[in-house]
Amino acid sequence: MAAREAQQERSRETRRRLLEASLATLSEHGFPATTVSAVAARAGVSRGAAQHHFPTRDSLVEAALEEFFSERTQKLRASVAALSTGRDGAPVEDVLELVFGFFSNRPFHAALHIWAAASTDAGLRELIVPAEARYGREVFQLMALALNADLSDQHTRRLLGLTLDVARGLGLGSVLVDTRQHQRHALETWSAILADIARND
Amino acid sequence: MAAREAQQERSRETRRRLLEASLATLSEHGFPATTVSAVAARAGVSRGAAQHHFPTRDSLVEAALEEFFSERTQKLRASVAALSTGRDGAPVEDVLELVFGFFSNRPFHAALHIWAAASTDAGLRELIVPAEARYGREVFQLMALALNADLSDQHTRRLLGLTLDVARGLGLGSVLVDTRQHQRHALETWSAILADIARND
Repeated sequence: MAAREAQQERSRETRRRLLEASLATLSEHGFPATTVSAVAARAGVSRGAAQHHFPTRDSLVEAALEEFFSERTQKLRASVAALSTGRDGAPVEDVLELVFGFFSNRPFHAALHIWAAASTDAGLRELIVPAEARYGREVFQLMALALNADLSDQHTRRLLGLTLDVARGLGLGSVLVDTRQHQRHALETWSAILADIARND
Repeated sequence: MAAREAQQERSRETRRRLLEASLATLSEHGFPATTVSAVAARAGVSRGAAQHHFPTRDSLVEAALEEFFSERTQKLRASVAALSTGRDGAPVEDVLELVFGFFSNRPFHAALHIWAAASTDAGLRELIVPAEARYGREVFQLMALALNADLSDQHTRRLLGLTLDVARGLGLGSVLVDTRQHQRHALETWSAILADIARND
């Protein structure tokens, strides 16, 4: 049994290295260059072992994107859960800080590379759109939960949706320059808008 | 004189083709691949003629980005000028529609490629940041002008700044999927927020 467990552990480690190498290759060299052989070479895994895990390039990239989004969502969920919440949900600024931060970090920059590549690559787009949509819905639900927002209200739903657009826009701005001061102002302004709405409910 | 004019016209045409080929190469293959020789070949211009216009790669890319931003700004300025304006400026929805549209079209997608490349390339970043900042300021001023907004008011300035973030975020969303319905809702929601503010002034 010990030998079998050790083998399973090695197999998981190989898979993990392949997924990590896929994301790095996707970000740096784009979808066409992300072949099973190229990723295997980067991960230091034999081509045969790589093909055992992922017979095709599409299955490899799909798993890598799935892993990428699921990891980001889990981290956000943990951060939201760790917020101190009162009876009416967590303070708006705290929730926004988490959400805005999530669209401005290194993984977001990696995602930007993948988006740019997908904008001119239909194959990659087909893989990324469903994963991205699920991620968006998850962040939306997490925000609603943390803010104790009333999702039966259309205006509330639209404001939460718009919050994701603001977060994406701030993230895009942060790619090139240090926008921390601007982000701080945006956070204050947007918090005030969301707070007004909550009060109106 | 006619011969000299014809030569000047040819020179302008060569420059134009080189700048266009630079942007295409930058978008598709990134900054490292955008050499004067590669761009000259793509433009169907001799390497010598290309180097006469642009002795270095940096001078070529800088001019191409400058041209790109200036063309986008001129188009936006013309669109804003064409808006029917009342005594209190143009209708908020009309102004937002122009601004949001500007961050969701094909040139924006090209810009996204360039941003993604610049996020991992310090040389390209140095060239793009000042041009991008000028473009942002210009769009900001155009919005203020069209809305007849009071720029001495801090909250107004912050909301206008946030409008650019919303526009960038919506643009990023539009890269992968058709987000027209979402954009329409975002436009309505954001227009209401901006209109409230205008009334408060």
